[in-house]
Amino acid sequence: MGLDPRMESEGQIPRYLVHEYQNPNEIILEFNKTLIENTCDLIPIIKPQIAFYEKYDVLKALKDTISYAHKKDLLVLLDSKRNDIGSTSEAYAQAAYEVYKADACTLNAYLGMDGVKPFLNHHGKGNFILVKTSNQSSKDFQDLFSTRLEDIPEDQVEIEMKSVRLERNYIQMARLVNTWGEPLPKISGYSDLGVVVGATYPNEMKIIRDIVRSSFILIPGYGAQGATANDVKHGFDENGLGAIVNSSRGIMFAYKARKYEEHKFGMAAREEVKMMNKNINKYVGL
Amino acid sequence: MGLDPRMESEGQIPRYLVHEYQNPNEIILEFNKTLIENTCDLIPIIKPQIAFYEKYDVLKALKDTISYAHKKDLLVLLDSKRNDIGSTSEAYAQAAYEVYKADACTLNAYLGMDGVKPFLNHHGKGNFILVKTSNQSSKDFQDLFSTRLEDIPEDQVEIEMKSVRLERNYIQMARLVNTWGEPLPKISGYSDLGVVVGATYPNEMKIIRDIVRSSFILIPGYGAQGATANDVKHGFDENGLGAIVNSSRGIMFAYKARKYEEHKFGMAAREEVKMMNKNINKYVGL
Repeated sequence: MGLDPRMESEGQIPRYLVHEYQNPNEIILEFNKTLIENTCDLIPIIKPQIAFYEKYDVLKALKDTISYAHKKDLLVLLDSKRNDIGSTSEAYAQAAYEVYKADACTLNAYLGMDGVKPFLNHHGKGNFILVKTSNQSSKDFQDLFSTRLEDIPEDQVEIEMKSVRLERNYIQMARLVNTWGEPLPKISGYSDLGVVVGATYPNEMKIIRDIVRSSFILIPGYGAQGATANDVKHGFDENGLGAIVNSSRGIMFAYKARKYEEHKFGMAAREEVKMMNKNINKYVGL
Repeated sequence: MGLDPRMESEGQIPRYLVHEYQNPNEIILEFNKTLIENTCDLIPIIKPQIAFYEKYDVLKALKDTISYAHKKDLLVLLDSKRNDIGSTSEAYAQAAYEVYKADACTLNAYLGMDGVKPFLNHHGKGNFILVKTSNQSSKDFQDLFSTRLEDIPEDQVEIEMKSVRLERNYIQMARLVNTWGEPLPKISGYSDLGVVVGATYPNEMKIIRDIVRSSFILIPGYGAQGATANDVKHGFDENGLGAIVNSSRGIMFAYKARKYEEHKFGMAAREEVKMMNKNINKYVGL
């Protein structure tokens, strides 16, 4: 369950909570706690998106939500898409794992391995690298065709009269993740290094699943972004493992779509999670 | 001047400040204020790296530093390398420009245009997209050779017996930025959309300067990361404009290298900035 608080308009955080608590830290914490309480026996992980906690200036609510989730035996994946050079990346890793106390987070590896390594040094934490993102313009860069030509000093080359294999950039990224994950210890065949693939790209998902055999796939884009259970099935391995499907708005604000009263938003979220689990399990054969 | 506080060991934030203030928010704010006070007549911009403020859990010190810098008529570039899908990216933009009140920030455009657009909608703010980063492993992904093949449904293609022009990924990213910047208004030939190119890659800098004629180039990597004034000269245009050179550790902790007493760290920073300005101006012919 994604926890990305929004409270600008109706159909988002219920008005009665906004009026009752006033302090944004309290409004959002109360909203999150009710959602967690109503779903914690049905889900393994919550995924707060840090952008929204920064926007409302409520990092206290983020920390308190994480602490509450841990009390309910949930894991916490901090969606932060962090990236930087090595020494700065270590500061981000400490923030994610020691200040916010998340169990996992998302990373952007445009900067290559030395931005990722400091996160891997925090053993036992899960790191998910963006490969193919759920948004429409992910094609702008992730879908370019590319190749690794070794020992070529030029920056622009003309390939002529010979055969070169080109693969889209997101595939190259998946191959990098697979290489980086190889030396890592595996539990049930999986390492701590995962990938992110949008549910909105089922064909790409299939290709990536075949490349990163030892990586969990975090799959955002289910629900509000339009993807269905059928779209995520290729993220799972042949035993029905290896994927984490996320829905944020679809669960958090289910009361609106399901026409529940505002104060029953927790119950609506629970119904939505039940339906999501049922639909996904059908497709992965569980 | 980069403001990336570190206080684990000697040679970083002076011990006497750590002992005098105790509260990390106050230690870091006091350190930053002294640095700003000693350099504000010589520099146009400070660049706090948010990772360090998150690591020490001192976003209050970040906000107070930004407010102090504004009082001293400095611009503030928040180094955050943010990236996400459109709706989340808008939350990050609001955090950067409305909560932290920065004047500019850095972005990672692996996700394409819809992660960048919400930042561009904040008119008058400067947005700098990572093109070629200063770290060694920037080659892992940024140096792949790639091409845009339109209307090809496959994800892997074999190019044979025909000519294809391949350019490194960082060049493709520079071309994207140039395309996105085209419709934007220009002042003295420059738009609000800039790029980031590490000072450690002077040859790449030259190529990128030619592609993004309307973009400012933010150049990190000067000083502690090893680059010199000669390395950054190609970032400037023929009028000596269009580049912002950043040094963080080299200025902040100059007292150590220059063997100043701890409590004269501000004076040492001022000397370092003076020398840096002089060296750079020599190469850009000013």
